[in-house]
This record gives sequence, structure tokens and C-alpha cells, in this order.
Amino acid sequence: MKRTMVNALGNEVGKSIVLCGWVHRIRQLKRVGFIILKDRSGYVQCVVEPELLNTIRLESVIKVTGNVVISLNDYGPLEVQVEKIEMLNQSEQPLPIIVNQADLDVQLDTLLEHRVLGLRHPKEQAIFKIQAGITEHFAAFLRKNGFTQIHTPKLVKEGAEGGANVFKLDYFGETAYLAQSPQFYKQMMVISGLERVFEIGSVFRAEAHSTSRHLNEYISLDLEMGFVENESELMALETDLLRTLMTWLGDEYALELRRLNVTLPTVPDEIPHMKLSEAIEILKNLYHKNELEGDLDPEGEKLISKYIFEKTGSDFLFLTHYPRAKRPMYTKPCGAHETHSFDLLFRGLEITTGGMRIHDLEALKANMHYKNLDPNAYSSYLEAFRYGAPPHGGLAIGLERLTAQLLGFSNIRRTTLFPRDGQRLVP
Amino acid sequence: MKRTMVNALGNEVGKSIVLCGWVHRIRQLKRVGFIILKDRSGYVQCVVEPELLNTIRLESVIKVTGNVVISLNDYGPLEVQVEKIEMLNQSEQPLPIIVNQADLDVQLDTLLEHRVLGLRHPKEQAIFKIQAGITEHFAAFLRKNGFTQIHTPKLVKEGAEGGANVFKLDYFGETAYLAQSPQFYKQMMVISGLERVFEIGSVFRAEAHSTSRHLNEYISLDLEMGFVENESELMALETDLLRTLMTWLGDEYALELRRLNVTLPTVPDEIPHMKLSEAIEILKNLYHKNELEGDLDPEGEKLISKYIFEKTGSDFLFLTHYPRAKRPMYTKPCGAHETHSFDLLFRGLEITTGGMRIHDLEALKANMHYKNLDPNAYSSYLEAFRYGAPPHGGLAIGLERLTAQLLGFSNIRRTTLFPRDGQRLVP
Repeated sequence: MKRTMVNALGNEVGKSIVLCGWVHRIRQLKRVGFIILKDRSGYVQCVVEPELLNTIRLESVIKVTGNVVISLNDYGPLEVQVEKIEMLNQSEQPLPIIVNQADLDVQLDTLLEHRVLGLRHPKEQAIFKIQAGITEHFAAFLRKNGFTQIHTPKLVKEGAEGGANVFKLDYFGETAYLAQSPQFYKQMMVISGLERVFEIGSVFRAEAHSTSRHLNEYISLDLEMGFVENESELMALETDLLRTLMTWLGDEYALELRRLNVTLPTVPDEIPHMKLSEAIEILKNLYHKNELEGDLDPEGEKLISKYIFEKTGSDFLFLTHYPRAKRPMYTKPCGAHETHSFDLLFRGLEITTGGMRIHDLEALKANMHYKNLDPNAYSSYLEAFRYGAPPHGGLAIGLERLTAQLLGFSNIRRTTLFPRDGQRLVP
Repeated sequence: MKRTMVNALGNEVGKSIVLCGWVHRIRQLKRVGFIILKDRSGYVQCVVEPELLNTIRLESVIKVTGNVVISLNDYGPLEVQVEKIEMLNQSEQPLPIIVNQADLDVQLDTLLEHRVLGLRHPKEQAIFKIQAGITEHFAAFLRKNGFTQIHTPKLVKEGAEGGANVFKLDYFGETAYLAQSPQFYKQMMVISGLERVFEIGSVFRAEAHSTSRHLNEYISLDLEMGFVENESELMALETDLLRTLMTWLGDEYALELRRLNVTLPTVPDEIPHMKLSEAIEILKNLYHKNELEGDLDPEGEKLISKYIFEKTGSDFLFLTHYPRAKRPMYTKPCGAHETHSFDLLFRGLEITTGGMRIHDLEALKANMHYKNLDPNAYSSYLEAFRYGAPPHGGLAIGLERLTAQLLGFSNIRRTTLFPRDGQRLVP
């Protein structure tokens, strides 16, 4: 008999069916026993002869044959009266973590060590279903707006972001780097005539310090577009992307959001924005933070987000006009000291960096010199600018950060299946 | 004035509009001049005063203001009578490759060296638009079938495929590898309760030899699913995936397919299949290929594909029951010497490897011993099998290979934006 999914049992009342899944809970009374069975679609109560439970263990994989009857219980309006249980894969006991309580009561390290088992908890699984929804919407929204998905190499010779935070490896006798971002390549694809491109891919940062907001490998949601006149267009696009994301997640992931007790933020028609220098001024005057120069620190991001939330009710804030000194060489300058760039803060954490890029070859070379970089080290990137480069700009969203802020986790390891940091290369 | 896209000019007849794009062709007659302008949506003829052309070069980026009129020409039923041209970015001349002829008449090396410029040719751009369509359909089809998209780490400690073909790097004093596949992680995610997962991501193979069908980095379309009973279910799913892909590409990418002069294959309701050993027997008897043992070589793949095409008209062929000796340790054995595994050949090239996996912990350890591997080296992978692992299997499709076979290219570098091989780490 073909397997029925738990969420399709409503069509099978009064019929004999087969379910497959994991043993989530077991309750053995004198005359009757219960198994709560879970599959990828949901949970259902199964009523069994008590003696059938003797060989059943939590988290084992079983195949159940039985009849669907109407009978309201904690898991819904139906239950399955079991005729036969087949053991597909017995689980060891005791389990290193308990996954059938209201909350997973374990330390982060323990959770990550037993990631696979931990995901059997409905709340943990909900995180990554919602994350898949974010990715899906990101791609769908951009396609609708004329963007083409691209895949660019992660093994590179020219580092886009500069600096020392790059993983090196031997590549057939040459030194290769792991891409810190698809920055050069997405720009090149705009210039190639695709005009509007996006990439969902892994990026790598060899930062040794360990914080709740950094990982050495993460998923970057990148987009880049041609024929934009200024960064306001990019910010408007991201606003639209986020607004439609919230609506879509609310519709498609209502169950998962409820499980996590999450209220989605309202994205205003226009997200508040201010110059970085204004933000620094406000932090100095209102919060006596005097040490900031050219960028915010994590505390500064939290405080200015709090400030704007209290003032406008917005969970989001664009900071603009970052100083040239703090932005990579491809960033389009704005006057002598600032740039046409922005960050997006969401509930106190930067989730996006974006901006206009330099599209004029001579201006780009000049900015490399300004940054003490040798244009000869970037010749394949620079070639793209010789044969017709439109004005362009783009941005990148950290998928794990966006997920964490949306769902209320203070550490992005909670929203990363298998985080990579100085302590973790397994599982 | 807001920019109009070329493919939206039909709504603007008799009106003044602004176009932005690249100069594809220039023709200067005595009394009149023509520019063929291209943007991401198409091509249009622009009629200009001849003297306006003096400063215009091929592939420069321009902004054109003019009136839309009905006038049939090689590029469609409309043309733009230009009032003003603004130079947004002048292109250098001469161009290293000519991109406005019917075909790009350059060697592969030259094309890849000037990849960005080469993509200005409509045929080159069509390849990657179709490739984006393949990825889009892969994800959409699987989501519809209950799969969740996942993102798993590319920096790993335990190599899934074994062997020496792995890139190594220093990871904060430890040795890390670049993932050759998401094999372990996708299995772990099935076991975690997600049941059905897919990943679209980069994989890395440190193979030193250079062939038309291998790259050192490529995009793997991976799927893995629980509660399958045998490999026939996996093969049926892939058949359905490919059949719906062809229909969808035919609808969505008709223009691009026409540009490339491509006829999409018909995917039969059931793709022919045979045991690998049968294929080897046929190749021996019919084609006097006597040297094959346990696998096909490229010539063997071509010949058996030719054989099945002549016999059944199918461009696809599943080969099954690969020998245990040739398959990785996670592959489910079938009898003493074979496995529950398969390859899919498409027009003479393997584009998929798949199969059932071992889901019983002891059997998995035993198979590691059979393969002379130490289970202790795989402890985080093995842990997943201790707490309830359902029967499962999966497959992976090489995106560049599928694209190449579909579009009729003999070298997968043609269907890779920036290929990585022993000779190429830039651009």
C-alpha cells in the first residue's frame, strides 16, 4: 500500500492507510498505548495495543498500518488505530538530547554537535523551512524584476574585498583564494549585458575572531543591476523585496512562524534613512558613545536601531554615505570623503551592505591607487570596464543574519545548519 | 524621463521615449545613420543623423531619446527616430572579439579570456539564460514535490567521495577540504526529518587532468529523499523532472532556443534502462570494445547511447547495478558485487549519478571496512544513523553538463561562465 502523508489523512477517514515516520512520543497505559508519529508534513496520534510498544523507542523510524478515525486530540481531529507496526530503523537510547519537549533545553554547543537529531524538534525544523522560504522569495522576486540567476566561481585569483581575511589554497601550483564575495563577477555579469543578476552562494571569510554575528562560511544573497542612477533605487528595490518577503512568509509559513512565536515586522513604504555621520552624531549626543569613527560597532548598531524604532516604529534603518576610507575600492565616491553606499540595519544588526560602483575605468584605477592597490593585480576585472560598462550598483544580504533577526535569535549559529567557525569544522 | 525597455516599445508607438543599452551595430549612409541598440530585453533599430555617429563606437553604452514609429526592419516592426544620444560609457576599439556577427568566430581560449565581452553576443547570452531556467525549474519542481532547499558547508573535514581529488587548505591550524559533493550533509538532512531536500551549490574536484567534460569547480544539482524503496523511484522522479523541464524550457525560452538552433529532446515516459554489465556486453559484442571493466569510458558512453537511440529513439539511458568496487562506501549494495545505483547518460554523456544509500549503521560501518576506510574518520556522519535513519536515496545532476548536452556543446566550458581548470583561475 502506498504511503499517506500525515497532512493528507483528512481524505482517508474510515480507510486503511500506511504511514511512515519517526516516533516522537510514546505513552503506555494499561489497556492502550499511544505513539505520536511525525513525518515531514506533521504529527498524528496513533493508538496501539500496549504490548506493541515494548520494542518501540523514541525517534525510531516505523511504518504503521491502520485505520483513520475522527477523534479530537492534542495533535488534531484525527487519529490512527494501528493494526501493524513495522520497524524500519531502530534508534539508540538514551538520546543525547530530548527533542519532544516544548523547547529544546540544551546549550548551543550541544545543539550544534547533535544538529541532525536536534532538527527533529519542530521549532528547529521550522527555522530552516522559513530560511528556504526566504531564499525562494529572493529568487522569485528578482526574476519577476528581470534578474537572471548566475553561478560564479568560488576559487579565485583576485580578491574582491582586499585585506587578510581570505582562505588560501594550492591550486595546481598556483595560489588560489576562496571568494569572499561574488562582487567582481556579479559586476562583470551586469556589464556583459545581462544587466540584472543575482547569485545565491557560499562565501568565505577567514576571520579568526569568533562572535555571535560572524561565520567563516555563509550564504550571501547577492544582486547587482545596471542603469541605476543612484543608491536610492537600490534601497527602494530592497525595501520592496523585504516588504513582499514578509507578506509571502506570513502566508506560506504561518505554521512555522507560530511554532517559533514570531511576529513578522512591518516594512514601511519607505525605510528611514540617515547618513552614517548623522547616526554617529546622534549616538554621541544621546548615548555618549564618543569612540565611533567611520563605522558603527555592534553596540552602536543596536542603539541607533533602538533610536529609530522609538522615533518611527521602523525595525529597519538605512545608513548611507559611508566614508571612502571604510569602503572597498569599487565603491563609487560621493565627494572627497564619502561614498554612494549604504548598510541596512534590521533590529540592531547589519544585514546588508550595498551601493553604487565605479563604472568608469579610469576612475576605478584612480580609486585603486587611492586605496594603495595595484591595478595590475586586477586586470581581468578591469578588462570588463574597457568595452562598455553601464552605471550600476548592487547589494548583498547575509541569509543567516536575515533569518536570525527575523526569528529573534541572537546568534547566527542558530540559523545555520552546520556553522563554520574557529571551533567548528564538524559536523 | 524613465527608461523604456526595448521589448516594451510596442506600447509607446508615437511617443517620445528613452532607451539605454549597448551599441550593437552601426551603419552610416550619406543621409542617414543607423544604430542597432541592445538591452537585456532585445534589439531595436535606431535612426540617427549621420553626423551623430561620429563619436559612437561599437559596444559603447548610450542613452537614446527619440520617437517610436512603425517601420518594419531586420530587428522588428518598430524603430526609434533619435533626437538625442548621450554617451554613458565609451568602449575602447578595436574590440578583441567581434560580437555582432551571426556567430562568434573565435577559439574557446579567446572566448573564455574575453568572457564578459563575448556574452554580448546573443547566442552566448542565450546559453546562460537557459541555464538559469534549468536551475529555476529544478528548484520549482522539487518544491512542488515536498523538497526543502538546504545550504550545507563547503569547508569540510570528512571527505564524502574519498580518494585524492580533493582541495586542501589550512583552517585555523586544522586541515580542511573543499567539499566534493554535499553527499553526507544531504543524507543527514533527510535523516533530520526534512525527508526531502535539495541543494544547488558549488562542488570542487582537484582532478589534474583536463578534459572537455571535467572542471575543477562546478554546480551540482543535488537531491536526496527518504522513504524510497528502491532506485526505480529515484529514476522515475528524475524522468519526471526532465520531462517537465523540457516542456517548461520550450515555453519560457523559445527565443533563446531558436537563437541557438536547438531542438529539445523528447523525454520518454519511461527512460530505457539496462544493467551496466549488459551495456558492457553489448559494447563488446557489437563494437568490439573489450577493455571495459566495471564502468564505461567516454567512448563507451557515446556508443551505448548511440545504440539505445537507434533502438528506441531515446536520447536518455539509465545504466544500473554499478559494481560495489566502483561506487562510494555509502552506496547500498545489491548482492555481493553490485549496488542499487545508476548513472543517467544523455546524448552520450553521463549527467547524473544516483542510487540508494545504506541507512543501517552497522551495514554502513561494514561497508566502510569493505572499502578499507576507518569508520572513526566519519564519526559525525555516522552519528546521524544512530537515532533513526529512514531508507533513502538521491542523485546529483551536473548543471554545466546538462546544459551542454541540451544545447549541443561538446565542451562544458562553453556552458560555464568562468570555468576553473588546470589552466584557468582567471577571469
